Parts: sequence; structure tokens; C-alpha cells
Amino acid sequence: ELGLQEMYFSRETLDRLSGRRTDRAWLDARQKDGNSVYILFSNLSPMVVSSQEDDGTEAETKLCRFRYEDVKDLLQKPSTVLVFLGVDRRKAPPPSSSVEPPAWFAISSDEDAAELLKRCRQTNCCFPTRPNRDLLKLSEEEAGTVAQARSVLAWHSRYSFCPTCGSRTRVEEAGYKRSCLDQDCRSQKGVHNTCYPRVDPVVIMLVIHPDGNQCLLGRKKVFPVGLFSCLAGFIEPGETVEAAVRREVEEESGVKVGAVQYVTCQPWPMPSNLMMGCLAVAVSTDIKVDENEIEEARWFPRQQVIDAVFRGSSPAFIVPPRQTIAHQLIRHWIGMTSNL
Amino acid sequence: ELGLQEMYFSRETLDRLSGRRTDRAWLDARQKDGNSVYILFSNLSPMVVSSQEDDGTEAETKLCRFRYEDVKDLLQKPSTVLVFLGVDRRKAPPPSSSVEPPAWFAISSDEDAAELLKRCRQTNCCFPTRPNRDLLKLSEEEAGTVAQARSVLAWHSRYSFCPTCGSRTRVEEAGYKRSCLDQDCRSQKGVHNTCYPRVDPVVIMLVIHPDGNQCLLGRKKVFPVGLFSCLAGFIEPGETVEAAVRREVEEESGVKVGAVQYVTCQPWPMPSNLMMGCLAVAVSTDIKVDENEIEEARWFPRQQVIDAVFRGSSPAFIVPPRQTIAHQLIRHWIGMTSNL
Ligand SMILES: Nc1ncnc2c1ncn2[C@@H]1O[C@H](COP(=O)(O)O)[C@@H](O)[C@H]1O
Ligand SMILES: Nc1ncnc2c1ncn2[C@@H]1O[C@H](COP(=O)(O)O)[C@@H](O)[C@H]1O
Ligand SMILES: [Mg+2]
Ligand SMILES: [Mg+2]
Ligand SMILES: [Mg+2]
Ligand SMILES: [Mg+2]
Ligand SMILES: [Mg+2]
Ligand SMILES: [Mg+2]
Ligand SMILES: [Zn+2]
Ligand SMILES: [Zn+2]
Repeated sequence: ELGLQEMYFSRETLDRLSGRRTDRAWLDARQKDGNSVYILFSNLSPMVVSSQEDDGTEAETKLCRFRYEDVKDLLQKPSTVLVFLGVDRRKAPPPSSSVEPPAWFAISSDEDAAELLKRCRQTNCCFPTRPNRDLLKLSEEEAGTVAQARSVLAWHSRYSFCPTCGSRTRVEEAGYKRSCLDQDCRSQKGVHNTCYPRVDPVVIMLVIHPDGNQCLLGRKKVFPVGLFSCLAGFIEPGETVEAAVRREVEEESGVKVGAVQYVTCQPWPMPSNLMMGCLAVAVSTDIKVDENEIEEARWFPRQQVIDAVFRGSSPAFIVPPRQTIAHQLIRHWIGMTSNL
Repeated sequence: ELGLQEMYFSRETLDRLSGRRTDRAWLDARQKDGNSVYILFSNLSPMVVSSQEDDGTEAETKLCRFRYEDVKDLLQKPSTVLVFLGVDRRKAPPPSSSVEPPAWFAISSDEDAAELLKRCRQTNCCFPTRPNRDLLKLSEEEAGTVAQARSVLAWHSRYSFCPTCGSRTRVEEAGYKRSCLDQDCRSQKGVHNTCYPRVDPVVIMLVIHPDGNQCLLGRKKVFPVGLFSCLAGFIEPGETVEAAVRREVEEESGVKVGAVQYVTCQPWPMPSNLMMGCLAVAVSTDIKVDENEIEEARWFPRQQVIDAVFRGSSPAFIVPPRQTIAHQLIRHWIGMTSNL
């Protein structure tokens, strides 16, 4: 399978129904509905249950799901943040029916984590502590929901004060808005992004050698031994996706880029990035890494990349896991002809 | 000319040299250099000079450029924000030369606008007051620089307090960072987006009718009479570009979308959006507008669109100006065959 696959964190199992965010009565009824599903976050980690395979390896991680009765006390606490995630698309009732599909909510609680875990009837549940690794073990179905919930909650945790005046803010619109409590604040006049969740666009790119048969991968010091990945960087204000690709590649590796082609994107909820995946064709080949960011960057021949992706017997390096857009860009390139 | 053109606000005439942002000595020397160029903002508007054509119509608007000597008093004021924009790519000296190309800086000042205008030797200079219209009159060369400067300055004006704790912040890294003044703030531990300029990704899409011969355009109440444009909306946390296109189109018009194809993007500095331009193929045709956002949406036959773009004798509607990505998406569609 070499084609572009559905990206992890990208499946939209819920219909966000953003129009309902200001419908207090509807939201209130959904909140109290016995079919509604609550997922619980502590310190930006979702409560999950991890099953172990018989051979001791870790299998999939599953979200712990709660009902209104299990969490209604938490909803009373002023420090709790509640976010309406949407309604389950998989359970849409027939058009004629008056039944509503289950609504999903995320709760962020500052209660003691051990106490929160006691609310779950399952054993082995936990709040994983290394999001970059642990959140990659979810099912595709749940990963998209976690991406949405964690990104919004991460915004609440970092943006509880008004950046325009420093006052406290209040949560509105079912968790998608924070309004300044100072009536005279500039943020109250007109529409301002300070009131809305932040999404940071990032470019991530596989740079192709002018010969078409090698690609540029780099590693940061913090990467596991042997791992090389695509270069990436934040899009700056007033910059296009394509210009950001050229700038970041040149900054990090010294390589100059010509044509840039958008391939696909991925939400990355650490905390709330949108990764814009591109192929980029190099027009120079000398490498000079920015040592503040990159430990090493190298041109890898296509065959070495194929061996690494398909786990040949002694691969020259390790590629990022399949859940990452870097992995998918690399696979996509392997699947293409050598000329763009 | 039907091909995709360079987007307004997208030309990178300056090399941002982001590595220099932490190089105090270099920045200091560039600031004081007699060849460096300063552009001046008041209330997020750049000082420009507007020439009038003989027939009374307004011609291009040009940025007023200042030297260090003209603005050094402003640089002393604590309320002034200074942003290093980059060095002029058009004036790159030969590789052997030790001369540096001119550095560009943007200054935001809260001095009285009339007083600021007196600093300029030209007559007819002003701070335009309707950015959505007035900033579209710049040359292509200057528009990209204004996009960068205005986006960063808009962030400073809205984000002068730490959103994590409400304390005041200090400008760092030549205008690309704000750090909390409270040493104990969580934002000081690790890297957090609260310290960096915000860029809001937006989808803007031309929706094509399943028959391939009509496109969906809508108008907001605030649009000039007769103007119809592409639908658009903010990308939400945990969402892909493609999912945002589907969601926003359905929310605003009731039309369901299948395939989505990214075409090109445009920075839109009102205040700091990144418009991701897409074509989207409708899989349903009934229109039901969200009256909170859209006054009217309609399917326009290709010939009517061609007449509107090329100003036929009595066009059925008005398209947005050529500086907008909406205009370019519409032109791009006209230039394509009817099957994607
Ligand atoms: N929105 C942002 N969030 C986090 N770090 C940012 C952001 N914007 C710029 N940075 C800086 O960019 C660095 C990472 O570099 P890069 O990903 O190559 O752009 C971080 O260590 C920060 O110094
Ligand atoms: N980052 C943002 N900046 C401004 N408005 C936003 C933002 N995110 C969501 N909104 C809301 O989205 C509305 C515009 O709708 P749309 O452009 O269709 O998403 C605004 O009136 C705000 O209520
Ligand atoms: Mg970088
Ligand atoms: Mg960067
Ligand atoms: Mg990087
Ligand atoms: Mg909308
Ligand atoms: Mg929206
Ligand atoms: Mg909209
Ligand atoms: Zn405020
Ligand atoms: Zn702080």
C-alpha cells in the first residue's frame, strides 16, 4: 500500500454542529442526556485504558467514556472546563426519527488525577504522560476526537487571561470562545482572534534532491537514536505555505528549494498545530545545518528510504511512525515516479 | 491571462534572516545604519503617499520610507514597537562584497497621527483608515512587506499581556517574541505558542456544481451592492484543511462537498490570517444559507462568471478585486476544463 492514507488525528467521527454552540437549551439537554458521552482530561491527557497483548507488548489504547451521572459533580466546579465536541456521525438516526445521535463532551478537571481515575469502572486506566508517544496508540476513530478535544483544552489552559488587557476571561459558546470580563476592554469591540482558539499552521516538507533519487531528512538532538524525519517549522505572519517551506529548509539545512507542492495536512494536538505537508524540490545540495535546531541532516538514497519504511533487515536509519505526516510524505514520495 | 498569478500580499521582497533576531549587536548596527529603511505604523496603518491620476482616480499608494535619523527619537519611547522585517533581496550585493543589503524595520507608534505625518517630507501622506480596501492599492513589491509588518504589529497590539497569567510582557527577538515578566509563569517553562505571533489559518473555497458548469458564491450583508465572493471560514482546532472546507460550506450554504483540492494560499493581514484557497466539488445542490453569516448564496453559471471577471457590458454580479485570493480562485476555475 503506497498511496496516501487517511492521516492519523484526521478522522472526523463527530459532527461539530457549531451552530449549536450558542443554543443553551439544546446544549443543556444534551449534557444531561443519558446517551451523551464524556471524556475526561487531566493535565491535557485523556483518561484511557491500555490493554496488554499476551506477549506483553502494548496494544491499542481506548478512551474511557463516562455518562452524565458519573461526572455531574465535576461540571459544578468552577475550575472545570467543558467543551462540546459534536454528535456521533456513526450513529446518525434515520431522517424521520426524532432520536438524536449521542453528543460528545470533553471535560478538563484539576482534581487529583488518582481520584479521577477511581471514577472509572475499568482497571488499568491512566492519564498517559508522554503525549507525543502515548496519543499515537489510539484507534483512528478516537484519535480525531482527541485531536479536537486536546487542542481546544490546551488553548483554555494557556489562554485563561485576556491578552489585550490582562483581565480574567469567561468560557462561552460551549468551549469555543473566551470573553474578557472587563467590559471596557478593546477585545469587546468588534471581532478579535484573542477570543477564539488558536491553531498554529506549520509546514512539514520532504525535500527531494535535484536528481530525484534522494531525499533530505534531519534529526533533532531529542530524537530517539537513528531516527530521521522531515524538516518542519512554523509559518510566520505574512508568509505563504510555499515561502515558509523555502525559508525553513534553507534555515535548517542550507538547502535552497524551488518548486513546492502541497500534498496533505494533519492536525497535531501538541498543543494545536496544523501540519501542512509538502514536497519540495531542492535546487542546491550542500548541507549546512542550523545547530540550534538540527543535529544532523543528510540526503538519503531512495533504496535506503524504502528499506527503512518497510523495515529491511538492517535499515540505515529509522523513519517516524506511520501515525505521522512525515511518515506518510516519505511513503508518498516512494510511491511516486522520480520526476515531480 | 488565465493561469494562476502571484498572489497579492505574497511577494517576499525581504529575506527575513530569522537567525539574526537574537543577534543584538548585528541588529543594533543595522538599526543605526544610514541605509536602513523604516516604515511607520499608526493604529496598524502604514504611512503612505497616495498619488492621484490626472483624471481624478486614485493611483498606487506608496509606503513612506524613513531613515534612522528621522525616527530615532521614536525608538527611545517605551510604547514604540520595533520589528525587524529582513534585508532587501533586490539589493543583494555580490557574494565577495562586505556591503550589506538595506535592512527594513517597522515601527508602531502611539504618537498623535498628525504629528507623525509631519515627519514626512512628502505631501499627501496619510494613514489610511480602511485597511480592507486601502491596503489593496500598494505595489506588489510593497504589499508583501506590509502583510508581514501589519500581521506582527497587530499581534503586539492585541497580545501585550501574558494570556497564561495576565502579567505584562516584554518584546524580544526583534519583535517576534513576547515573554512574560513574571518569572514564575508557566509560559517560562518550555516552549509555548503564547510567546509567538499568531497566524490564523482560514479556508476559502470555490465550490463547483456537480455539473461542472456553475460555481457557488455568497455575499455577506456588509459587502458592496452586487458583490459575491467565495465562502470562507476559520479552520478549527483538530481539523484538516479539507474537513474545514466541507464543514464551512455546509454551515454557510447547506451544500455538501466531496473532493477538495488545495490550489494556493494568501496571507491576509486583517489582522493575521493565512487564507488556504481550495476548489471543492459539491455533491448536493440545494442552498440553505446561515443567515447569521451570509445574506445570499447562489449558483452562478460559468458564462456569468466570465462576464463578471472580464467586465462584460452588464455583468450579473461583481467579483472581488484581483488582489484577493477569491478572485484568483474564480479565474483559475474559468481557466480549467470543467472536470477536475
Ligand atoms: N507558534 C509557535 N509555537 C511554538 N514555538 C514557536 C512558534 N512560533 C515560533 N516558534 C519558535 O520556533 C521554534 C521551532 O522552530 P521551527 O519549528 O523550525 O519554526 C520554537 O522553539 C520557538 O522558538
Ligand atoms: N481566529 C478567529 N478570528 C476571528 N473570528 C473567529 C476566529 N475563530 C472563529 N471566529 C468566529 O468565526 C466567525 C466568522 O466565521 P467564519 O469565518 O465562517 O469561520 C467570527 O465572527 C467569529 O465569531
Ligand atoms: Mg526552523
Ligand atoms: Mg521557524
Ligand atoms: Mg523546525
Ligand atoms: Mg462560517
Ligand atoms: Mg467558522
Ligand atoms: Mg465564513
Ligand atoms: Zn480584556
Ligand atoms: Zn505569564
